[in-house]
Amino acid sequence: MANEATTTALQPQRTIAELKELRALTGDTNGAQRVCWTDTWIRARSWMRDKLAALPVEVTVDEAGNQWATLRGASERTLLIGGHIDSVPNGGWLDGALNVVAGLEVLRRIAGAGTPPVTVRLVDWADEEGARFGRSLFGSSAAAGTLNPDAVRTLTDRDGLALPQVLAEHGVELDRAGEAGAQLRNAAAYLELHIEQGPVLESMGLPLGVVLGTYGVERHAIRFTGQSAHAGSTPMDRRRDAFGAAAKLGLEIREIAKRHGGVCTVGSVVTKPGIVTAVVGECDLTLDQRHLHADALAAMLAEAKQASERFAQDENVEVSWQRIWQIEPILFNPELIELADAAVRATSGTIHRLPSGPLHDAAEVSRSGIPTVMLFVQSLRGLSHAKEEDTTEEHMQMAVQALDRLATETMHWITQRQ
Amino acid sequence: MANEATTTALQPQRTIAELKELRALTGDTNGAQRVCWTDTWIRARSWMRDKLAALPVEVTVDEAGNQWATLRGASERTLLIGGHIDSVPNGGWLDGALNVVAGLEVLRRIAGAGTPPVTVRLVDWADEEGARFGRSLFGSSAAAGTLNPDAVRTLTDRDGLALPQVLAEHGVELDRAGEAGAQLRNAAAYLELHIEQGPVLESMGLPLGVVLGTYGVERHAIRFTGQSAHAGSTPMDRRRDAFGAAAKLGLEIREIAKRHGGVCTVGSVVTKPGIVTAVVGECDLTLDQRHLHADALAAMLAEAKQASERFAQDENVEVSWQRIWQIEPILFNPELIELADAAVRATSGTIHRLPSGPLHDAAEVSRSGIPTVMLFVQSLRGLSHAKEEDTTEEHMQMAVQALDRLATETMHWITQRQ
Repeated sequence: MANEATTTALQPQRTIAELKELRALTGDTNGAQRVCWTDTWIRARSWMRDKLAALPVEVTVDEAGNQWATLRGASERTLLIGGHIDSVPNGGWLDGALNVVAGLEVLRRIAGAGTPPVTVRLVDWADEEGARFGRSLFGSSAAAGTLNPDAVRTLTDRDGLALPQVLAEHGVELDRAGEAGAQLRNAAAYLELHIEQGPVLESMGLPLGVVLGTYGVERHAIRFTGQSAHAGSTPMDRRRDAFGAAAKLGLEIREIAKRHGGVCTVGSVVTKPGIVTAVVGECDLTLDQRHLHADALAAMLAEAKQASERFAQDENVEVSWQRIWQIEPILFNPELIELADAAVRATSGTIHRLPSGPLHDAAEVSRSGIPTVMLFVQSLRGLSHAKEEDTTEEHMQMAVQALDRLATETMHWITQRQ
Repeated sequence: MANEATTTALQPQRTIAELKELRALTGDTNGAQRVCWTDTWIRARSWMRDKLAALPVEVTVDEAGNQWATLRGASERTLLIGGHIDSVPNGGWLDGALNVVAGLEVLRRIAGAGTPPVTVRLVDWADEEGARFGRSLFGSSAAAGTLNPDAVRTLTDRDGLALPQVLAEHGVELDRAGEAGAQLRNAAAYLELHIEQGPVLESMGLPLGVVLGTYGVERHAIRFTGQSAHAGSTPMDRRRDAFGAAAKLGLEIREIAKRHGGVCTVGSVVTKPGIVTAVVGECDLTLDQRHLHADALAAMLAEAKQASERFAQDENVEVSWQRIWQIEPILFNPELIELADAAVRATSGTIHRLPSGPLHDAAEVSRSGIPTVMLFVQSLRGLSHAKEEDTTEEHMQMAVQALDRLATETMHWITQRQ
């Protein structure tokens, strides 16, 4: 009995120890190196399989390369807990890995308690980051049915290797990746813990937050075309200054974001001819706009377009817009949000709900129709995708506890819905 | 007598015909190709020497590679008329060439009228453009004593050839280039005609203008350093947006310029990391400020610095400034400006005085202490340093006439001052 008690108790400090093990195995002085479809990623997955071997679970890999550990329960209805062990190059030790390693601990605790009321599966999604080929959420979008093989078939890495060839080397046939959708057949809920990757929880002094959903994104390339002219011989009132219009728009999109409670970012500005002695004749900028609500996102886009036209007229320049990418906002399940609130409150005493700016595998699962929610744990200094990425050990332990509580309550919830 | 009358009359239309000859000889479909220290430039100079061979002048080349045509007068006191036959690559047909070819016509007219009261010299300055090695005003600064050989010794062209070696191939020994200063010994006045290279005269409907001097220039590299952060996860009020500060400064320098009557230009903006999904962590921009009066230029610089610090504080970013280059304003001779006014009025009926934004060889001559003035002729659409550079034939003819009138009056002025 003493042994069984030890086995069934959640040990959040073990998650931290295991994350450090993984870091030593798959990181270097520049950070995490678990880029998907590389040897280091294979090593990380093999390490995870070794951990899972001690549990009464079946480990499989699906047609999209996602790795599943299945703990059979009294019902076929399934609770999914997800994450991704892949990282960006020179990445952080927690982004993605915390999710699956915390999920491992929760799976261990549930397995130690005997046959659960529902089946529980831990999934390590393949290529969440898209670091090598530029297409993120590969495995989860394949499972969710939103991956179009033709849209990624010609992607190549820096060495010119084609995505289908590299996938094949890892046992994944691109045109069959969608068959991973079968894995979601009995899924009744999906949970994902992730570091926040932003500064909100830290600025509020909170360890944990409940994620309302992922922002919709409108991403555009904007070009202002004026007239390059000599910086010395062209009076101010005779200029057609493309940068003047770009600067005005760069400031205005911040007001638009504040007005609507979303975020707008000019991340790249390129000036041509781009020399010290010439008025800017052409200015390209990128605009990334995000909001949790589709109507607000549409309004932010419309206002930015109107502003750009007004500034173009002010400056006697032309403006053109080209859409780079868009995705609708994805709202998580309201009942699971309530359960997550309760789990966070029981763990840390306070609750806070916030949207997720970055996309996550959870968004793909959610839009496939499976009730989904995420937990965020505080990121120090809001840093991610960098070796400086970190979270306090106290907060990581609380995150594992909250995920465990949420898993337990979600199993009950699934049972009640049956 | 009929013959002599033909010889002595000024023929401005001949200047246009000769410029077209030169264009056919040294240009291609991309524009003028008379880059200094190249075979095409040698061809242009040889063409000019052929023209000069018909005149009673002595042609010499000085230690800096400047080519002189000397018409001996009754006095050793000398009127200089200058220009440059070199061009930028893919340049315009008039920038520099109009000056010397119009000067040729004026020299012809003066020579045809018999021995002038003062010596008259036409100078074709070497490497005004600095197109191959990046150092403009080579020949005129050597003559003016402001060229430091050590500052240019290590300059190389695109093929890695060193300036001293290329100069040597053209008979110029870098360390002796300053000996060209002897050429200015008896100079009593310097005149230069140039296309405006800007839009002012065209916008006012004027063919000609009198140049008050060349702008002083303050040229700086400015860096705003904030914090790169995820465009999705970083709320607007938590950002340290380097581009926000840069955009504010880009707009403010235009107000500063208007307040002082100078020009300020942000010509280059570089954002880092410069990707669509990240708040700009670092933004480099160039600032070029010009004014005809040193105190106003200093005020424009001080105000831009103060503004940059204010904006850095607003945005919670750092700012640093690095001077790239500066030159003081150079004011032309007030008496010669009056003579030039009279010549322009006699030719076109109207006068207008304006500063020169671009630098010219005249600035170097002026700061060596020789009374100097320039005439500008209207540029179509303000374009220069491009094959589209042009001026109407009517205006070019008026420019030759005005230069001739100014040369005549300046010879009188020199005589009176002796």
